[in-house]
Amino acid sequence: MLRVGYPATIESDLLKSFPEGVEFIALPDSLDHDVNIDVWIPDPYPTRALKVWPHLHGVRLVLSLMAGTEWIPGTVGPHVTICNAHGAHNIATAEWTLSAILAMLKYFPLYQGIQQSAQWKRRFEIPAHYAKLTGDARPLYPPVMLEELTGKKVLMVGYGGIGKEIERMLSPFNVDMMRVARSPRSNPKVHAVSELDSLLPWAQVVVLILPLTAQSRNLIGAPQLALLQQGALLVNAARGPIVDTDALVAALHTGRIRAAVDVTEPEPLPDGHPLWSCPNLLITPHIAGSSPQFGPRSMHTAAGELRRYINGEPLHNAVQTAISPA
Amino acid sequence: MLRVGYPATIESDLLKSFPEGVEFIALPDSLDHDVNIDVWIPDPYPTRALKVWPHLHGVRLVLSLMAGTEWIPGTVGPHVTICNAHGAHNIATAEWTLSAILAMLKYFPLYQGIQQSAQWKRRFEIPAHYAKLTGDARPLYPPVMLEELTGKKVLMVGYGGIGKEIERMLSPFNVDMMRVARSPRSNPKVHAVSELDSLLPWAQVVVLILPLTAQSRNLIGAPQLALLQQGALLVNAARGPIVDTDALVAALHTGRIRAAVDVTEPEPLPDGHPLWSCPNLLITPHIAGSSPQFGPRSMHTAAGELRRYINGEPLHNAVQTAISPA
Repeated sequence: MLRVGYPATIESDLLKSFPEGVEFIALPDSLDHDVNIDVWIPDPYPTRALKVWPHLHGVRLVLSLMAGTEWIPGTVGPHVTICNAHGAHNIATAEWTLSAILAMLKYFPLYQGIQQSAQWKRRFEIPAHYAKLTGDARPLYPPVMLEELTGKKVLMVGYGGIGKEIERMLSPFNVDMMRVARSPRSNPKVHAVSELDSLLPWAQVVVLILPLTAQSRNLIGAPQLALLQQGALLVNAARGPIVDTDALVAALHTGRIRAAVDVTEPEPLPDGHPLWSCPNLLITPHIAGSSPQFGPRSMHTAAGELRRYINGEPLHNAVQTAISPA
Repeated sequence: MLRVGYPATIESDLLKSFPEGVEFIALPDSLDHDVNIDVWIPDPYPTRALKVWPHLHGVRLVLSLMAGTEWIPGTVGPHVTICNAHGAHNIATAEWTLSAILAMLKYFPLYQGIQQSAQWKRRFEIPAHYAKLTGDARPLYPPVMLEELTGKKVLMVGYGGIGKEIERMLSPFNVDMMRVARSPRSNPKVHAVSELDSLLPWAQVVVLILPLTAQSRNLIGAPQLALLQQGALLVNAARGPIVDTDALVAALHTGRIRAAVDVTEPEPLPDGHPLWSCPNLLITPHIAGSSPQFGPRSMHTAAGELRRYINGEPLHNAVQTAISPA
């Protein structure tokens, strides 16, 4: 009987969709003895999972509940198959992305500041107020501080499951969409990452939603930020190291661009780090992919993967396939 | 030749889509002599328009550039036909509504406060932080302060052009939608306003997007707010007096409900008014319907209406049809 270790913090209700004939072993954070399991569902928090790992023996399959699995291969080694919870974060992350784009285009952070001052401002007073706060040197403001998403030029960098979900949520807005990913494709047209620099000047909104790899680390540095048009909005819903933080801080302080980031480098962002106080920036503390619906969705994904594993069917979400022991 | 008076502040480029054979008269705010015109395009700001009105003679048709025309009938009297710019505000107002819903469901105001404190908070610390700030007494928080719009129960109060546009923008989120309007209809099902109270307990999000009338004034008072479920979100994208402000302030302070309002009563909201500092509230200063695309869209609507007027065709957006002089 296959032994499946799972975080004790997860409600056992969520195990209902798993195949029958499996033995479940709850693994507390504070695990202090060795355990033999075949399949490991690590705690979504890597720091907790890493405390448990040294006590595990016999693991052949890791079913991550997260989309990002960067820490896992180096921990478990090459003789283990790793699946991510591809898809379980898609809706929440895509919703966050659309929310962040809209909040920035509607200048909600600016209006929240006005609300905090408890003083009404008339439409026509707001652009000057904004310029004073942000140092944005655009010679022409819109007549009000507000933009429409409808018709905007959106560049999606990364085009996996979340990217497609974002595109679906953008569909009512008739945006002009360009896509960039590791593997260029057609139908819809996806450009190669090598074309990124030539597309950046075109974009009014740039969405980063690609995995962190050696190639994507620092993909957006000072040269790329300099290619963005005045007032462009950079949204990072991917991973912090994809953007050069110092370059982002510098670009935001010129007032040339705007940004919304759910992820930072370093992360957690240290208290008082310069990024916190940049103008035209929305930061959320890596919450985008979470949602009250996350548990059921990611466990459902893991259950499907386990069923395929047991039946010897091809896995849908394998990010590493075990190599045979030498 | 038909004489059309328009606000001198409007760029004359926007007059290009108007029918030929029309004489345009620019009307400055500071108009100090009488002018004979047939058609009046009032300044979008009623205070400015009201200064111009006493100098106008011969007006038979008013082409408002706004959706809300409450101030016009009482000013110009019953012998004038009034058209609104039905549709010109739809996209901007619908975008604001979706933006406000998403910003509140993602708790962006809370996260902005965290950003201002320049201190990272971990996911699991945030619910307690939120409860402390808002007094929200919900016994169970979601595991993170974040909700999904996907699958939410949305009650739309008012179902005109903007309401339909909001519904279109909500379509990727598979919300469960109920609608209420003055005239009940089917296909899609629209309930009568008399059923409002019975629907309020069902809703997780209530969107007010109906015109201000004697019937809709104070439609949402203390009894209606008391019918909302814990954590429900009330969004007012319509007119301030539709909601009883004192009742809203009281309800927000209990932490039971949340709200996002682009309009208030009174408006402008006086400095230091209690509404400014309510928890779980997003206020924008009546900007929702504005957009850089507003001018072209509303003038395009007015031009179409004028063409129909000249050709004797039925008007699309008449909110008052002139009665013949006695």
